[in-house]
Amino acid sequence: MKRKVILHLAVSLDGYIASEDGSYDWIVGDGDAALNTENKLNFDKFLEDVDIVVMGKNCYDQNMHNEYKNKKVYVATSQKLENQDNLHFISGDIVKIIQEEKEKEGKDIFLFGGGKLIDSFVKADIIDEYIIGIVPIILGKGRPLFLGNNPTIKLHLYEYVIEEGITILKYSKRKTEDSSI
Amino acid sequence: MKRKVILHLAVSLDGYIASEDGSYDWIVGDGDAALNTENKLNFDKFLEDVDIVVMGKNCYDQNMHNEYKNKKVYVATSQKLENQDNLHFISGDIVKIIQEEKEKEGKDIFLFGGGKLIDSFVKADIIDEYIIGIVPIILGKGRPLFLGNNPTIKLHLYEYVIEEGITILKYSKRKTEDSSI
Repeated sequence: MKRKVILHLAVSLDGYIASEDGSYDWIVGDGDAALNTENKLNFDKFLEDVDIVVMGKNCYDQNMHNEYKNKKVYVATSQKLENQDNLHFISGDIVKIIQEEKEKEGKDIFLFGGGKLIDSFVKADIIDEYIIGIVPIILGKGRPLFLGNNPTIKLHLYEYVIEEGITILKYSKRKTEDSSI
Repeated sequence: MKRKVILHLAVSLDGYIASEDGSYDWIVGDGDAALNTENKLNFDKFLEDVDIVVMGKNCYDQNMHNEYKNKKVYVATSQKLENQDNLHFISGDIVKIIQEEKEKEGKDIFLFGGGKLIDSFVKADIIDEYIIGIVPIILGKGRPLFLGNNPTIKLHLYEYVIEEGITILKYSKRKTEDSSI
């Protein structure tokens, strides 16, 4: 099976992935388990099927790469930085590099964020799965997931999970151009 | 029970309520009923509990008010137009008028759209329920639901419906300021 590029993150109902100052302490449920689904979001299991993580320099600067020491981590940056251990700094065309990785043998590729990096992947339409947790909040302002001016991409909802008001929607790309899957 | 102001509409995963040209032929499911919930979206039943509909002039110009002949319809417009039958044209502060209606006896108030009208209601934080159908598509560009620079509004997911990949999320406002409902 071909490697998939998977975007996996949480957004507010109004589409923000972080507050203006970069914080995400608002990514919590509403405390009501009444609608919880039997299937749960199993992030550890998700990571088992991943061997590459792609993130932007801001995420790296916040040490988010430390969670992924046993995976190859690509960091998109405008600076020229030296690779070290599992860390690969890319100042060139990160989308092209991930496209090349997709053609190789391996597990899935986790597109971590942030927003600008995701934007370039959406625009190139090389994301195979979108796993989006919708947090029960209108944040009001912040850093948006979708920056606009994107191609139209038809999706197929293949699974969902609800955990205390957070609705995790798992989409693959729709296979045909008509309305069927 | 107090009258509620209810926003009820569909958005693309990237938060658009209409294409750039105003069309919404993309508001369709993915053709796969495998995840359909037992409870369905019953729009007729929703309308039974509504006796006021609020819409902008663009919606009126597209004759969307014709569906609501047995309800009081407020049309927000910058023009001075004469009221006729069930149609009330408001060139003044529509939010204030709806706030006054909320204090009166009656059924619920359906906030229909479009985007600019909704924006003023979000900013005034007088929407009691958000019923948002998330269509399985990244539209790419269009008319956004949320225009940004809004207050933070914590929500409580009280019901959901899935119909062929469209996820309808029903939120009320969260009652307390902590993370519980």
